[in-house]
Amino acid sequence: MADYRVPREDMQFVLQDVFKVEQDWAQFAELSELDMDTAVAIIDEGAKLAETLIAPNARAADEEGVKFENGTVTTPKGYKENFKQLAEGGWVGVTANPEFGGMGLPKSISAQYEEMLCAADISFSLYSGLTAGAIMTIDQHADDNLKATYLEKMISGQWTGSMCLTEPHAGTDLGIIRSKAEPNEDGSFAITGTKIFITGGEHDLVDNIVHLVLAKLPDAPAGSKGISLFLVPKFLVQQDGSLGERNGVHCGSIEHKMGIHASATCVLNFDGAKGWLVGEPHRGLPAMFTMMNYERLGVGIQGLGAAARSYQNALDYAQDRLQGRGAKATSEMEKEADPLIVHGDVRRMLLTMKAFVEGGRGFSTYVGQQLDIAKYAQDPQQKARAEALVQLLTPVAKAFLTDTGFEVTVIGQQVFGGHGFIREWGQEQLVRDARIAQIYEGTNGIQALDLLGRKIAGSRGELLQPLLQDIQDLLDQPLAGLEVEFKQLAEATELLRTITGEVLNRVGDDENIINSVAVEYLYLVGYVAFAYIWLRMAVVADPLVAERPYLASKVKTAKFYMARILPRIHGLVGAIRDGSESLYRHEVGEF
Amino acid sequence: MADYRVPREDMQFVLQDVFKVEQDWAQFAELSELDMDTAVAIIDEGAKLAETLIAPNARAADEEGVKFENGTVTTPKGYKENFKQLAEGGWVGVTANPEFGGMGLPKSISAQYEEMLCAADISFSLYSGLTAGAIMTIDQHADDNLKATYLEKMISGQWTGSMCLTEPHAGTDLGIIRSKAEPNEDGSFAITGTKIFITGGEHDLVDNIVHLVLAKLPDAPAGSKGISLFLVPKFLVQQDGSLGERNGVHCGSIEHKMGIHASATCVLNFDGAKGWLVGEPHRGLPAMFTMMNYERLGVGIQGLGAAARSYQNALDYAQDRLQGRGAKATSEMEKEADPLIVHGDVRRMLLTMKAFVEGGRGFSTYVGQQLDIAKYAQDPQQKARAEALVQLLTPVAKAFLTDTGFEVTVIGQQVFGGHGFIREWGQEQLVRDARIAQIYEGTNGIQALDLLGRKIAGSRGELLQPLLQDIQDLLDQPLAGLEVEFKQLAEATELLRTITGEVLNRVGDDENIINSVAVEYLYLVGYVAFAYIWLRMAVVADPLVAERPYLASKVKTAKFYMARILPRIHGLVGAIRDGSESLYRHEVGEF
Repeated sequence: MADYRVPREDMQFVLQDVFKVEQDWAQFAELSELDMDTAVAIIDEGAKLAETLIAPNARAADEEGVKFENGTVTTPKGYKENFKQLAEGGWVGVTANPEFGGMGLPKSISAQYEEMLCAADISFSLYSGLTAGAIMTIDQHADDNLKATYLEKMISGQWTGSMCLTEPHAGTDLGIIRSKAEPNEDGSFAITGTKIFITGGEHDLVDNIVHLVLAKLPDAPAGSKGISLFLVPKFLVQQDGSLGERNGVHCGSIEHKMGIHASATCVLNFDGAKGWLVGEPHRGLPAMFTMMNYERLGVGIQGLGAAARSYQNALDYAQDRLQGRGAKATSEMEKEADPLIVHGDVRRMLLTMKAFVEGGRGFSTYVGQQLDIAKYAQDPQQKARAEALVQLLTPVAKAFLTDTGFEVTVIGQQVFGGHGFIREWGQEQLVRDARIAQIYEGTNGIQALDLLGRKIAGSRGELLQPLLQDIQDLLDQPLAGLEVEFKQLAEATELLRTITGEVLNRVGDDENIINSVAVEYLYLVGYVAFAYIWLRMAVVADPLVAERPYLASKVKTAKFYMARILPRIHGLVGAIRDGSESLYRHEVGEF
Repeated sequence: MADYRVPREDMQFVLQDVFKVEQDWAQFAELSELDMDTAVAIIDEGAKLAETLIAPNARAADEEGVKFENGTVTTPKGYKENFKQLAEGGWVGVTANPEFGGMGLPKSISAQYEEMLCAADISFSLYSGLTAGAIMTIDQHADDNLKATYLEKMISGQWTGSMCLTEPHAGTDLGIIRSKAEPNEDGSFAITGTKIFITGGEHDLVDNIVHLVLAKLPDAPAGSKGISLFLVPKFLVQQDGSLGERNGVHCGSIEHKMGIHASATCVLNFDGAKGWLVGEPHRGLPAMFTMMNYERLGVGIQGLGAAARSYQNALDYAQDRLQGRGAKATSEMEKEADPLIVHGDVRRMLLTMKAFVEGGRGFSTYVGQQLDIAKYAQDPQQKARAEALVQLLTPVAKAFLTDTGFEVTVIGQQVFGGHGFIREWGQEQLVRDARIAQIYEGTNGIQALDLLGRKIAGSRGELLQPLLQDIQDLLDQPLAGLEVEFKQLAEATELLRTITGEVLNRVGDDENIINSVAVEYLYLVGYVAFAYIWLRMAVVADPLVAERPYLASKVKTAKFYMARILPRIHGLVGAIRDGSESLYRHEVGEF
């Protein structure tokens, strides 16, 4: 696999010029000491880790995979040392509460760090990624005692965390989980049950693992309103903070998977394991969901990271590999063939990748910025507006970034021809690793249902308004030379508005409509949102080209996106308008 | 992985009722003794092999993979025995010349056999598949002596074949190959060079391997018009037909790949290996291409087979797995959840799979029928028309069946949620195995270039006419109850006609247009062709439902296809109309 180079310039362009995050930071008490120079320095530190330690190890780690023997999991060579470096750099707690040692950085910066970590090695990124999710959940919902006992060790990366939701019979449908929590006399609970697909549920990177486990109390109401959340450490922690006896949670096996071979995906058996309630009884799901907005963007960024890496590799290859002649004579006539990049279809593939990668970087930063405003803003109106955008965009970020991320990695493999199918080039690993991000943390179908059902229909379309308003603000100040593209954005936005209205009008008459058109609707929102991001980036880039030549492509790529990718929305409209009709003609036996 | 069940009923429906192939056979001297009962019996024999021997071994064979040690390749457990069974059943020579022991069956039947073989195990299918291609090439282009020496042994499956085209620096661009062929005194040639990605180039299934090798004679003109074809056996064959000394061709290594782990993908080193010219000097590429129409449909069917298997698994899973509640109360209220199949989005996924699988089966049989007419018909007009359809549809069959096949396997993985990512369920293997079919035997981008460049633009659109005429014949006899769908087909066909005209009008002014819009154009043709196939199947199925209840879904699935899949064409039009403009704004350094 080729060396990975973090796109530092593009990350800075997005943060500084497009979204002007520094202006936000200056407003927010907790971020007022942060400036762009510091942010750039931080990104550069992360980039060094990603480029020199993590990325070079990813191919070998995939080949070696994780090993399971006698209840213990061994991670690939280099993982333990690299995790130690990551922890010592403070990266496990990059967005975590400074009170417990976290860096307390905004998500807009963390989004860049996460992208580079995932581009370097998704498997490796998961050990700290899940820990960050657990940290956030504990910080927001656990009592002071639990916080004092666990947070500092987790934020410093001495211990890691896991999120234990899925059971063999219960994936998407957490309401039917069977894990039980029975009160002990000392205020703790005895947790019993089997959890599967637990990322980082067991491994050898650190001494202790803090599991956050969904289980049902004896008096729990049925369904999803009867689920509670518990903290269950692998080793019990003694008064002085040192590790005590082994708790009754053990890894029964690990999964053999299509990708993320170096990530331990565990079956965990809880046999009366000692745990402590986090948050209120029966309120476990909402507690889990407070960190979902952060986590789901993070999973979206996994798709983006893999896509960014694949694009970089494909671009290198298309410039180096000589094959065939372009339609026009080139400067390569003394060589036996032209580089791939002269061919129209190769350019189509590369630009599709570039449009999704750079558009995705802009989009994830846009969502990250809204998360930051929602978290740090004092002004209630500003906060509420950002929260609304986050509500709307979170499922889009998770699903659209991972679906387009997967598409990009598949294209990036295609650019390599037969070599893309061979392991040594690394392009196929990116496909295999990116694939899981469309599935876990709520399948992309579930994200679509969340978007159209809970968010759009649930608000009677109100939640769409802040996005439409942001788009309108941009449309009000068109850039000369992009008149056609501004018109395309205006028309696409109008189509989104129309389709949204049509679907909402049918919800009362058709109980199946939401789940029947949700995926196509999410794509519609995604393509329009990316169109907005692309034109926003183009408008900002255009006057800067003279001083920063690398921005020359932004307007051109925006034009490409509008001409070649955005028209895909016209392929979605027919399906959405069909509603549930075509999906419910078949009896179950007629499939 | 679940048991595989060959869709015998659907295959018979397609052959007998939709395409009425029996009527063709009766006309053709060489097929006049074949009837549907025999065909059904043959399909049933193949089905037993696929279901009981090959499919059950596929998961283990993927895990074990092929091994390379000291120049020899070991195939997974069971492969040798299963290949022997396949050979003894006459399946290696299923379409081969009866003069040398072939079954001489038409491609329309072979297409069903190939689908089941690929559904059972794509890796396994390749050993006989490449042999069939080599058989055809030798039969059509080699001299009588070579035919007498090699064909019978290959057709009986005692020896296998390989096709040696690619070199490290020359994949798509065969004009720049460097392998040399120098004349020996005895009329043979000494072949020297390195070939890569050679499927079945070395293995332990049989005693001898017959390599067909592209190389350049000393006096060869530059480029693709200077390539000759040679037959190079692994072991030289003595006068009495027994094996003599080892030839100078050796396997240097095998590739480690994303999928088809049980297929040996070899680097072959030719060190003055003894070979014999096949066909005319410098006419090696055309000789290879005579079998390409057959082979490319065969590769398309690999995508179809993987898709068909994935659909079968996903449907079983969606009926068994209980998760969540549907919008309506179901009969499952006493259970803790409803089966997945009640959910709209799961139905969307299943029906998308079904539409591509059954539509693909119809389409591949349609193309197979045209190959048979082109091969067997006496009437020159009938023959020429079929040849034109084959020319047009071959790149569509290869690319569209593999791209939709891959899409289907990815959806089939998604239906399983997290379990789709785990190896033991088999869904992820189908994704990995299907992926290669989009790449080899000419990448799908190259297929698109062939379609739009050589076929459509090369004929000034004439080659499209027979397809348009077949569609018009159908449109002239609409089925009551499908008025909307017939109108959709008519409009889509008109759009195809319009777009084709627009592109042709621009070819003179824009040298890059073909390669810039070819992929989207191929999709446009593919979606319209599948729409035609679906309505054709619906028209035939409708009156038969009473006697064959399993056909009840055909009209419904046709309606689904027209409402939910065909509209994708409207997402392609904008990109095609943009031409090459958006692809050539970027300088090479601006990507």
